[in-house]
Amino acid sequence: MKEFNVPFRILMGPGPSNVDPRVLRAMSQTMLSHLDPVFIRVMDDVQDGLRQVFRTRSPITLPISGTGTAGMEAAMVNMIEPGDTVLVCTAGYFADRMAEIAERAGGRVQRLEAPWGRVFEADQVRKAVDRHRPKVVAFVHVETSTGVSQPIEPLAEVLNRDDIITIMDCVASLAGEPIDVEGNGLDFVYSGSQKCLSCPPGLAPITLSEKAIRRLSTRTAPVQSWYLDLAMLRKYWSEVRVYHHTAPISLNYALREALRIIEEETLPRLYARHRLNHEALVRGLEAMGLQMFVGKEARAWTVNTVKVPEGIDDQTVRTALLERHGIEIVGGLGALKGQVWRIGLMGYSSNRNNVLLLLGALEEILTELGCPSADGVQAASRVYREAELADSGRVSAFSEEKPVRVG
Amino acid sequence: MKEFNVPFRILMGPGPSNVDPRVLRAMSQTMLSHLDPVFIRVMDDVQDGLRQVFRTRSPITLPISGTGTAGMEAAMVNMIEPGDTVLVCTAGYFADRMAEIAERAGGRVQRLEAPWGRVFEADQVRKAVDRHRPKVVAFVHVETSTGVSQPIEPLAEVLNRDDIITIMDCVASLAGEPIDVEGNGLDFVYSGSQKCLSCPPGLAPITLSEKAIRRLSTRTAPVQSWYLDLAMLRKYWSEVRVYHHTAPISLNYALREALRIIEEETLPRLYARHRLNHEALVRGLEAMGLQMFVGKEARAWTVNTVKVPEGIDDQTVRTALLERHGIEIVGGLGALKGQVWRIGLMGYSSNRNNVLLLLGALEEILTELGCPSADGVQAASRVYREAELADSGRVSAFSEEKPVRVG
Repeated sequence: MKEFNVPFRILMGPGPSNVDPRVLRAMSQTMLSHLDPVFIRVMDDVQDGLRQVFRTRSPITLPISGTGTAGMEAAMVNMIEPGDTVLVCTAGYFADRMAEIAERAGGRVQRLEAPWGRVFEADQVRKAVDRHRPKVVAFVHVETSTGVSQPIEPLAEVLNRDDIITIMDCVASLAGEPIDVEGNGLDFVYSGSQKCLSCPPGLAPITLSEKAIRRLSTRTAPVQSWYLDLAMLRKYWSEVRVYHHTAPISLNYALREALRIIEEETLPRLYARHRLNHEALVRGLEAMGLQMFVGKEARAWTVNTVKVPEGIDDQTVRTALLERHGIEIVGGLGALKGQVWRIGLMGYSSNRNNVLLLLGALEEILTELGCPSADGVQAASRVYREAELADSGRVSAFSEEKPVRVG
Repeated sequence: MKEFNVPFRILMGPGPSNVDPRVLRAMSQTMLSHLDPVFIRVMDDVQDGLRQVFRTRSPITLPISGTGTAGMEAAMVNMIEPGDTVLVCTAGYFADRMAEIAERAGGRVQRLEAPWGRVFEADQVRKAVDRHRPKVVAFVHVETSTGVSQPIEPLAEVLNRDDIITIMDCVASLAGEPIDVEGNGLDFVYSGSQKCLSCPPGLAPITLSEKAIRRLSTRTAPVQSWYLDLAMLRKYWSEVRVYHHTAPISLNYALREALRIIEEETLPRLYARHRLNHEALVRGLEAMGLQMFVGKEARAWTVNTVKVPEGIDDQTVRTALLERHGIEIVGGLGALKGQVWRIGLMGYSSNRNNVLLLLGALEEILTELGCPSADGVQAASRVYREAELADSGRVSAFSEEKPVRVG
């Protein structure tokens, strides 16, 4: 084996996103034992930081030692008992995965379907709940496969009942779009480390409401997964510190630093940055004559889906972006294969320079391929200038006085 | 949150071990997407490297995206179908965990027990197999809780039958003690990244025999875990590259570099180093009047268990080692709590300087506590000198001409 050196990459796919050098530096520190009192403090800090971004005071708020899908599986195996009716709102690839995992956890799954690219209305969900009387209802906040951001509040109002456990997937939105776990009465919420948190992949932050915690102790069937059993994991992550497994030490260093960076930026600014970059990107793409896949009211800020223009080969464009510019955007998943591009603007990757660079590069490539495009960069630039005039607090991304991030 | 700086630590517990700076450097490189062609080559290299250390050509040889326990759970949920009889050879904490996970996977578990600190004889296992007619038999190679190294060959001879799937745990021994997966006909073998591989924790290398691979396709019940479903994971890790989850990118950079370092050292030298450091440590401890917990014939080279002397408080000694010297050794688990110290000599941590330093520090502390000890360091030194005389190829740990590691 030869030495391996990572080439230059601007990660604008739907995750992983680029990682702040501070996070890489924190991660590359020497090893500690999982039993070391110093590492125990790291665990505590990580939990506190996660409580901030989830907006909760829940004692069970911790990173599962696996990727986002491990978080999804943790939700299903801990909240579902064999035979429980589970209603899954499916309008995309990851909601389908939720349904599949719920089935493997022994759930009797009912699917409430919406077309890919659309959101669920409260009424629809209310009717499905009345019909199926589920014990568990699961939905996705930002569906990575479609770029739809499901409004949380209307569903939360329907679902906030004593007899329903609500599971929400926010793998592609935590720390990118506003989430208020406690305010919305969500019961089991999970995410992944490699998207808006801008940490390397390998951890799945989760949080449980009081109701979800009660369910851990009132269930009669054992949790089928030992690795993901939260009744045990909570003891490992709380003061009792009962050994369960060896947490990924370095990834926890990294997550701690990523959360510290978010704490410095503050959540309102973080959300504003994600929103602004999204708006600038969309304005630029539309100025170039491209069409967004999702209607204006339901677009995620973090994953932007744009239709591949008629006559253009999806892969040709992506290859040129990668080879000429080191920029990664990603194609459609499942039913949307070849139909859309997915452009991520998440965490460290969500910044002004990335937006402008991508628009310029796309313009160049599409024009070469006989699909003349223009004005994307300037249209996006105008969005930034307008925002600067409206909010002089955001003037310079490179200001030394304020810890504002590029964006 | 304040900046976090890891204090100095010499990790001589039963894992994690210290990590070579080369591995930390490789890990701290910038992020790649899991879909990037460059990362795909990293995945291929990791698989090739793992095949070398497992000694197998098996196509399903890959790191599970979780810690060693996730590897254990992957073995159980993929190899066991509900109702299958599973024989677990239990003589320690981690074998007990195997039994528990096998039960959660639906197995009808039969335990063959041996006292903690003892090995299983082929005859015992043969009789248990004849009595229970299990479909799956599981045992631990090096039991981290006791420091016993179970001889593999005698059991493998009994178990190498068409109707039995043999699962072996080598979390604490892979790349530390000789293992020949293919030669011994083992079917599902798993390990962890943070012990003798000296990589940060978070990955669980596994390998499956042809028989185990056949079982994936002939089973009738779905695998209860989606995250650990090897029929899907194999597609993600093989040429078809069907997306399954986002592999922990940085940890795979790290594992690749750790495997590259092992390739440079070569397995015979790696084993010889682990053996020599173990022998020197034991000679030193015995010279100090301490007693090993495990008989000479069954001692692991990687995890060394030594009895806490009469009248000495386990924790007092460990605290002094940590505070004065930054050295971590670990106490007993479960039934051995307070009875033994567990001293790890694994991977990067298995070196001559660590052995000598620990012996000197222990001598100082025990003497202060009224348990006079002497001569540990010199006794161990003699082991190294003898080995040098016997093998002039190992003369200098710091030789510039040969890529010999400190040890």
